[in-house]
Amino acid sequence: MDGYESVDTTSRSGTGARVYFSTDRDIDLYELEELCDAVGWSRRPLRKVKKAIQYSFLVVTMWEMRGKKRRLIGFSRATSDHAFNATIWDVVVHPDFQGKGLGKALMNYSIKRLRSQDISNITLFADPHVVNFYRNLGFMPDPEGIKGMFWYPNR
Amino acid sequence: MDGYESVDTTSRSGTGARVYFSTDRDIDLYELEELCDAVGWSRRPLRKVKKAIQYSFLVVTMWEMRGKKRRLIGFSRATSDHAFNATIWDVVVHPDFQGKGLGKALMNYSIKRLRSQDISNITLFADPHVVNFYRNLGFMPDPEGIKGMFWYPNR
Repeated sequence: MDGYESVDTTSRSGTGARVYFSTDRDIDLYELEELCDAVGWSRRPLRKVKKAIQYSFLVVTMWEMRGKKRRLIGFSRATSDHAFNATIWDVVVHPDFQGKGLGKALMNYSIKRLRSQDISNITLFADPHVVNFYRNLGFMPDPEGIKGMFWYPNR
Repeated sequence: MDGYESVDTTSRSGTGARVYFSTDRDIDLYELEELCDAVGWSRRPLRKVKKAIQYSFLVVTMWEMRGKKRRLIGFSRATSDHAFNATIWDVVVHPDFQGKGLGKALMNYSIKRLRSQDISNITLFADPHVVNFYRNLGFMPDPEGIKGMFWYPNR
């Protein structure tokens, strides 16, 4: 299939199906919304989600394939200056597929794609409960005291 | 002058000159390199700097104007998905012009431009010695425990 890549020849979903990755941006936004709903994210206007996908440097989708049927089970994207740095956002794995190493596979695939495009500085902002997940993937919190900061209006 | 905007009608440089901001990307890369040299940054390949400027969502330059002569005295840029988030990089003010509130003016101008384009989530990674500078501008470190993380190869 065009635009799809299996990262592993073994089944990773634990359900007898196979898992594939794609960087194709032709994503059904309702299917993506369903995935984000499943992990309890706040809904966002699809018009803005569409624009964010269009202007992200990298968009990775993870699919469970059963015969000719596919199901969206994971997503990540990254903004970038196409030269030095990339920042990964919106990493999600469907709850039914968590705990099988698929989040790790999704991240490793995303990192590999960024590195293949000569991006040396890969960053992200991690919620407290996933800091260790990212640490195990090689991400360091606050390296050399560098702090991630967010601007809050009206403060 | 096209593409220039004075943020303040008073002189800000303390030298009898005036300070202007621009989002024009037609920047002399050698002049930018000179500015970055002045604050002791490691040199970067101009080919990559050019690409980073091209693919940044926002590029802000700060100029000291004396009559028809201009001098590049500050710079910042931001990557973005054009929809939800922007990350500010490479904030620099020439040492001769530090301590006059120009870093604050540069940042406020950058934030204003991002907000005017409907970006709600403005982030950055701050070196330890500038965390308080950004805090005073309304940036929060680690809000709700969110950690800025950097990927290190081979760890």
